[in-house]
Amino acid sequence: MMATAMEHFFKPSKYYLTFGPNEPAYHVKPGDILVAPTVDARGYDSRGIQIPENARQRSPSTTFCPSNPLVGPFYVEDAEPGDALVVKIERIALNRPMAWSRIRANFGSFTEEVPGKRFLLNEPLEERLFEWSLDLRRNVGILNLPKSRIGKVEIPLHPFLGSIGVAPRFGRVETALTPGEYGGNMDCIETREGATLYFPVFVKGAYLAFGDVHAAQGDGEICGVALETTAEVRLRLDLMKGKEIEWPRIEDEDWIMVAGSSRPLMEAFKIAHYELLNWLVKDYGFDRWEGLQLLSQVGRCRIGNVVDPFYTVLAKFPKRFLP
Amino acid sequence: MMATAMEHFFKPSKYYLTFGPNEPAYHVKPGDILVAPTVDARGYDSRGIQIPENARQRSPSTTFCPSNPLVGPFYVEDAEPGDALVVKIERIALNRPMAWSRIRANFGSFTEEVPGKRFLLNEPLEERLFEWSLDLRRNVGILNLPKSRIGKVEIPLHPFLGSIGVAPRFGRVETALTPGEYGGNMDCIETREGATLYFPVFVKGAYLAFGDVHAAQGDGEICGVALETTAEVRLRLDLMKGKEIEWPRIEDEDWIMVAGSSRPLMEAFKIAHYELLNWLVKDYGFDRWEGLQLLSQVGRCRIGNVVDPFYTVLAKFPKRFLP
Amino acid sequence: MMATAMEHFFKPSKYYLTFGPNEPAYHVKPGDILVAPTVDARGYDSRGIQIPENARQRSPSTTFCPSNPLVGPFYVEDAEPGDALVVKIERIALNRPMAWSRIRANFGSFTEEVPGKRFLLNEPLEERLFEWSLDLRRNVGILNLPKSRIGKVEIPLHPFLGSIGVAPRFGRVETALTPGEYGGNMDCIETREGATLYFPVFVKGAYLAFGDVHAAQGDGEICGVALETTAEVRLRLDLMKGKEIEWPRIEDEDWIMVAGSSRPLMEAFKIAHYELLNWLVKDYGFDRWEGLQLLSQVGRCRIGNVVDPFYTVLAKFPKRFLP
Amino acid sequence: MMATAMEHFFKPSKYYLTFGPNEPAYHVKPGDILVAPTVDARGYDSRGIQIPENARQRSPSTTFCPSNPLVGPFYVEDAEPGDALVVKIERIALNRPMAWSRIRANFGSFTEEVPGKRFLLNEPLEERLFEWSLDLRRNVGILNLPKSRIGKVEIPLHPFLGSIGVAPRFGRVETALTPGEYGGNMDCIETREGATLYFPVFVKGAYLAFGDVHAAQGDGEICGVALETTAEVRLRLDLMKGKEIEWPRIEDEDWIMVAGSSRPLMEAFKIAHYELLNWLVKDYGFDRWEGLQLLSQVGRCRIGNVVDPFYTVLAKFPKRFLP
Repeated sequence: MMATAMEHFFKPSKYYLTFGPNEPAYHVKPGDILVAPTVDARGYDSRGIQIPENARQRSPSTTFCPSNPLVGPFYVEDAEPGDALVVKIERIALNRPMAWSRIRANFGSFTEEVPGKRFLLNEPLEERLFEWSLDLRRNVGILNLPKSRIGKVEIPLHPFLGSIGVAPRFGRVETALTPGEYGGNMDCIETREGATLYFPVFVKGAYLAFGDVHAAQGDGEICGVALETTAEVRLRLDLMKGKEIEWPRIEDEDWIMVAGSSRPLMEAFKIAHYELLNWLVKDYGFDRWEGLQLLSQVGRCRIGNVVDPFYTVLAKFPKRFLP
Repeated sequence: MMATAMEHFFKPSKYYLTFGPNEPAYHVKPGDILVAPTVDARGYDSRGIQIPENARQRSPSTTFCPSNPLVGPFYVEDAEPGDALVVKIERIALNRPMAWSRIRANFGSFTEEVPGKRFLLNEPLEERLFEWSLDLRRNVGILNLPKSRIGKVEIPLHPFLGSIGVAPRFGRVETALTPGEYGGNMDCIETREGATLYFPVFVKGAYLAFGDVHAAQGDGEICGVALETTAEVRLRLDLMKGKEIEWPRIEDEDWIMVAGSSRPLMEAFKIAHYELLNWLVKDYGFDRWEGLQLLSQVGRCRIGNVVDPFYTVLAKFPKRFLP
Repeated sequence: MMATAMEHFFKPSKYYLTFGPNEPAYHVKPGDILVAPTVDARGYDSRGIQIPENARQRSPSTTFCPSNPLVGPFYVEDAEPGDALVVKIERIALNRPMAWSRIRANFGSFTEEVPGKRFLLNEPLEERLFEWSLDLRRNVGILNLPKSRIGKVEIPLHPFLGSIGVAPRFGRVETALTPGEYGGNMDCIETREGATLYFPVFVKGAYLAFGDVHAAQGDGEICGVALETTAEVRLRLDLMKGKEIEWPRIEDEDWIMVAGSSRPLMEAFKIAHYELLNWLVKDYGFDRWEGLQLLSQVGRCRIGNVVDPFYTVLAKFPKRFLP
Repeated sequence: MMATAMEHFFKPSKYYLTFGPNEPAYHVKPGDILVAPTVDARGYDSRGIQIPENARQRSPSTTFCPSNPLVGPFYVEDAEPGDALVVKIERIALNRPMAWSRIRANFGSFTEEVPGKRFLLNEPLEERLFEWSLDLRRNVGILNLPKSRIGKVEIPLHPFLGSIGVAPRFGRVETALTPGEYGGNMDCIETREGATLYFPVFVKGAYLAFGDVHAAQGDGEICGVALETTAEVRLRLDLMKGKEIEWPRIEDEDWIMVAGSSRPLMEAFKIAHYELLNWLVKDYGFDRWEGLQLLSQVGRCRIGNVVDPFYTVLAKFPKRFLP
């Protein structure tokens, strides 16, 4: 299959605001490599120019939160329900000297509100914009904090894809917000360079889409917005025929991981750990209860986001304890 | 508008398994009356005959839980995003002498699991089927309880629409399970004969669909399945142009009500009460804080279901305290 | 036992701010009748006079929220762990022409915050006091709503005990806030005249305490404060030796009920229904699964409060379906 | 103060099963050092001998779950409500070649049940015991997994105190289960050698108690039981007069951290982050919103346990970004 693999450099002319079986931007084959530039969560590109309104492909119905225009969807030949789509993130090269973040009025982990789900009687928060300078050579982000004693801060960058996923089981889901069994806006810092992702295929063709690059982010993305920026992304695709998985899986040098997304937070936690245990049992020959015992003692977990309509928890098992 | 109203007796030839902008079964106008027979949650009609497989209109993608085939969708002329669709339930006439209920393996309020969200390591429950006789003349359901001291029980029937809603904001949502801001599988016993429902219109044409008649149900539908049966349903439609509402509203002789659906349960509770308070403020001239005070002292609430991917809570305000 | 029953008219000289094995106010026997006046949640009596500071019996440690001074505790002779204390509410006679309610800064169902658990970054709500006139002859409460179109409202009164319970399993729990398996601040409108309550006895002597009379309240007590007032309360005590129950039970003419208290709300829901099902199985001879089926179809539930550190849900089964 | 500091080697003769103002085992002064051996969660000491029943100091009332007998309580002179007790963990020296873990019938993250809160209708899990060999020289734990392909596993040890805390605001709380604002059974792997802990003092004397050493544990302690063992623990105490803190704080070489405990999980998350942000604002001169922005981008968090009546979340801020 690698013999016929091709590298596609893809320059998007339109960006989708939903995951789903939208008109494919491109048809690709397992083994192919995709290289594409992303735009940021508000649709600004690497030069700081906003994509034209008509390049944003909305849903035919009411648009809710027109954020996170994504590259794709890519129709993967041969991908059918019951397969797993493999996506190796070979490179996320930041390409803009600026990232922004925000505090939004009715959003973030302290409110738990999201667009369409308001329930607080308190006055909303005052909106604030934060502009981070990105020094790509030194790989750091710099922020002025004029009202704080420290005055200025410099943090290391660790770019990752805030959103990546396939067409969901039903219809379309907005790219801006909701993660799920199809991936989506998981905001997991582990979807970074070097990681391999496995998605369940729900719709023939898979319809992979991605973007929403974050230059850095804390666990939970508590204010609701990370260091929003752009990158050139290089992905290598592959397909596992007949490999049934229930939730997105991530693998890097040290860990196998499952991303579970739901509300309440505990449900995301349980889903991720249940599927990770299934993985240990089915693929690595663990007895269910012995696997549970070991996972209970060496498992680690990370919270991706606690700000979206569904939250994402990543359950992690160290590869060094695999047979 | 009533001058041109028509009564449509509608005999469905196909049934949809998703809420959404599916091919309309019929075009109707505000003021029109719809009369249609429903099938039960597993697709059996009033004679106990299952609808043919090809009459079930699934989503193009993986089907999850092929339950609750619904009548519709009805395209309502003039209905546009920002309007409210008004649905008066004029009649729900049970038309079958039998209803069934079940205990399912991984479902119900004691597990909180739903299809696609498994997380318990316990053995699943043993599946059980319960067949209720419906005495339509006496309006009672009768169940044999052979293993219990009581032996047999007879309960009053109070038929209602388990599922009714419009096209959601995005794409499609399965009829079988999830309620939301578009209505859907709310399982509220208040969507019964005599009630008037108000739905936000998210998609031009509204795309009303309904069915899943329950002959009786307890609060929360705790085992996950009510007295599933069929009825002939008569609805009168109307439209409130430019009436922005966020969640389904229900009105009967005594109450104004809002149905909020979400997980966790408390979020559904808060959404419903927040929107009900907004209703009091905007339409009835209550000061926000005085309205909150009064609602706090006279409000009642009911739990529709605590078994679906989203739960439904109904916040209720007594009409006798309206100005 | 009734032969030796006594009626005790009790005029408290001190009021406790914790449930627990505090110094008994009185020793009573099963069969005895207690009659006592209560003070309101802030310690004002029926004449509007605040009880002196030294009559409030705080915990030896930091006091959190010095509300809900209660009458008691009553040491019940013979009551031992494993028994059930029976409390028949024979009368709740309101005795003050005024009740108050409040909107508090960081409290209520829209915030979910409680003292000691703050997590919102929004500005707190503005505190507001509402004074209700109680017309005890007509059994109505009257509130002026000067900023609302309606101007004034009159609601029926339905007095009940906001707080009643026994010593908890461990140590002490503040009367002001938390309900639990020992009862406490459940804020269930069903703890009213005519109801019979059953509490598990955790500590020898039971240590019954009560008060916090509400003249009226909506489901969930959403703003966090009901119509706070005073009453003369008459209770008849009894004891069921060796009757193990897990959570408070309530019985009236029409229902048997269980009050489950926990967070999140769904956990309180599940606890209450689980214990109610156990009750059906153990005392009324239902098969577990047949009982679940029937409860699923005829059960009703009410939300007591969704504002305290634990929420209270009341699961209800109609007595007419008991054998 | 250090001039008069003393080192107390303490050999307990009794062990408490509640946090609270129990009879002090010892009176100590700020600056003093405590050295004491602990017993494991079931009361076995370093030689594998169970402590006698009469050395377990239960609550005067019903005992719930007689686990986690703790060393203490230590009455700290001068400690008063409003102060912060400082506990430097100078050493946790494992002293037994064995640790055990278990799968319990109605416990763990997959059930969410705890003693006193049952709500699942599924059959309970089958109980299983796991015995880990501890190689203290190589600092690894070894477990046979006879039913799994891997057969045997060896994991690094990272001993920590599963339970440490002071007297709670009210009465007593069982050591076995519940964490809270007073610390308790937090099961945070960060309460390890080298860490400094800060507890709010709620009761004069503070009443520090500790034990329940875990040799290793995964995030969330998902099966409910870690590598339960014993150690000799050395703590250095200090006192910050008038230092008001709301929740336990932890500091090590790299992080400042807050442990929030509550249910649901999201509430523990919010509490911990809210208090951590307060710490940044009050002690380090951050503007509230700038601090929130920075914490959102560099914060990390860990889940201590999701199995107890309250869950524990640790919010973490890297010290290198402090002024």
